[in-house]
Amino acid sequence: MISQLIQKIEKTGAPIVVGLDPKLDYIPDSIKSRCYEEFGQTPEGAAEAFWQFNKEIVDNIYDIVPAVKPQIAMYEELGIPGLIAFKKTVDYCREKGLVVIGDVKRGDIGSTSQSYAEGHLGGVKIGDKVFRGFDEDFATVNPYLGSDGVKPFIKVCNEYDKGIFVLVKTSNPSSGEFQDRLIDGKPLYEIVGQMVEEWGKESIDGAYSNVGAVVGATYPEMGKILRDIMPHAYILVPGYGAQGGKGKDLVHFFNKDGLGAIVNSSRGIIAAWKSESYTQFADGRVGEAARAATLDMKKDIEEALSMNYNH
Amino acid sequence: MISQLIQKIEKTGAPIVVGLDPKLDYIPDSIKSRCYEEFGQTPEGAAEAFWQFNKEIVDNIYDIVPAVKPQIAMYEELGIPGLIAFKKTVDYCREKGLVVIGDVKRGDIGSTSQSYAEGHLGGVKIGDKVFRGFDEDFATVNPYLGSDGVKPFIKVCNEYDKGIFVLVKTSNPSSGEFQDRLIDGKPLYEIVGQMVEEWGKESIDGAYSNVGAVVGATYPEMGKILRDIMPHAYILVPGYGAQGGKGKDLVHFFNKDGLGAIVNSSRGIIAAWKSESYTQFADGRVGEAARAATLDMKKDIEEALSMNYNH
Repeated sequence: MISQLIQKIEKTGAPIVVGLDPKLDYIPDSIKSRCYEEFGQTPEGAAEAFWQFNKEIVDNIYDIVPAVKPQIAMYEELGIPGLIAFKKTVDYCREKGLVVIGDVKRGDIGSTSQSYAEGHLGGVKIGDKVFRGFDEDFATVNPYLGSDGVKPFIKVCNEYDKGIFVLVKTSNPSSGEFQDRLIDGKPLYEIVGQMVEEWGKESIDGAYSNVGAVVGATYPEMGKILRDIMPHAYILVPGYGAQGGKGKDLVHFFNKDGLGAIVNSSRGIIAAWKSESYTQFADGRVGEAARAATLDMKKDIEEALSMNYNH
Repeated sequence: MISQLIQKIEKTGAPIVVGLDPKLDYIPDSIKSRCYEEFGQTPEGAAEAFWQFNKEIVDNIYDIVPAVKPQIAMYEELGIPGLIAFKKTVDYCREKGLVVIGDVKRGDIGSTSQSYAEGHLGGVKIGDKVFRGFDEDFATVNPYLGSDGVKPFIKVCNEYDKGIFVLVKTSNPSSGEFQDRLIDGKPLYEIVGQMVEEWGKESIDGAYSNVGAVVGATYPEMGKILRDIMPHAYILVPGYGAQGGKGKDLVHFFNKDGLGAIVNSSRGIIAAWKSESYTQFADGRVGEAARAATLDMKKDIEEALSMNYNH
């Protein structure tokens, strides 16, 4: 699967993933009011608004980015109707040719991790047939439970040609509380990074592995170290834009081949229509604003990478 | 919420939680065939079988245990129909007076954790009304992202009188890969345990906190240390029975007041009808076997605790 993602990154020239993390606040009244009219001011109405909002964004960016990353928490908050909107979004994005990274941060012990893996990446056998659950292309995975929590995901990745990104160093302010603690002189995130590289050997697909890592844009120095520790891991980089990460912070997450990282932006793209930088779209033109913000982000990363190569 | 759980533990005399983790293998053909007849050999049919299986168990144990713990991964594996069966199970168990611990192991950064917390424990505001999503009483939470991943859960616990159990030392064989690594001479699980006690101060409810901890029965010596480090945390103990934990391993998870721990058994109870110990129910009498296995487990724990007090 990682080779498919890389192909799409090369084709679009954009190592960018758009985070489809809808919130009611981000959605223009025009969309909300028509959904509430049909389904009421209910979880069903809100979920329909999520879906229509997502569709407008996807229709405006599917040709310029390789991938999207819906954050399942936003949908789970609405219960079953939200999860139906999540599934509809995943299916639609795949139809449009986008790679879908399910930001689900799952992780459990052995057979329970296997159930998550089968539900999100693989399929479940009932009688003689295999049925796909959410069927994302990648899922994010929490490593706290160790190898026997992660390996069932890798097994399913190999069976269905899918991939995972394991949380290594997250973008949030308190991520260091446990992740930065020193173990034999090395921070925990480096030890997890070493394991990601090890686990990745079980699922090599071209120059990279289907086992990638999540490392926050907000910690560029750590990104530099982790890039070296995990030569075969693609790095999914959250924290760009609204969380504070800038183009210049990203250069160390990439390898010399210009590959090796894909940068996520959620709010900065999907809520661009509400931002001071895109007032021309302030009347609720969500899709056009998202496209403009994506192209600006592409330029920002391109400039940062080219400056880096010129030095 | 923890005070409600304790009341129910005292009333039933059983510090036991029954894990509702259905698998198709555990379900008798009699249930499966009638569900497949109605819904086909499909995720809908399998989800209906999960629900009917759960109902038979719950109807046979609701008066002798305080709580159940559905593992959401099993349901998520079936996609949307599975999650509908999860929700139906949660609602039914609460109707029967059981405390419901959603074993969801969620955890993310700030506002994303808040969405999970609102979806599983609290509610989401749409217009002027608050709608409940899955509405469990407790949720399990993964601490890898640090305080700003956990605190949004605590905020929701305080607002809705709910609780969480934070993963500290999990029951699986490779849990030590990261959790046992030494930081300034202390294993990571102790450092997480200290944080659990700290976080718990923000949600005290009687003698204990609404912030509890998960510590596997398979690591009794670590349970003893963690019991001391987290005096206000209730410990949810998985790993009893099928995973290898025995009654005598459990004594150190309890405080001198006989409280402080609640022990989970899943397969040992819900699949008891298939076990060699309960051949009298081998014709598919799931509920009766579950009740017998629960009463045997209660006796095993009682004996272990009373032997401990007599020494």
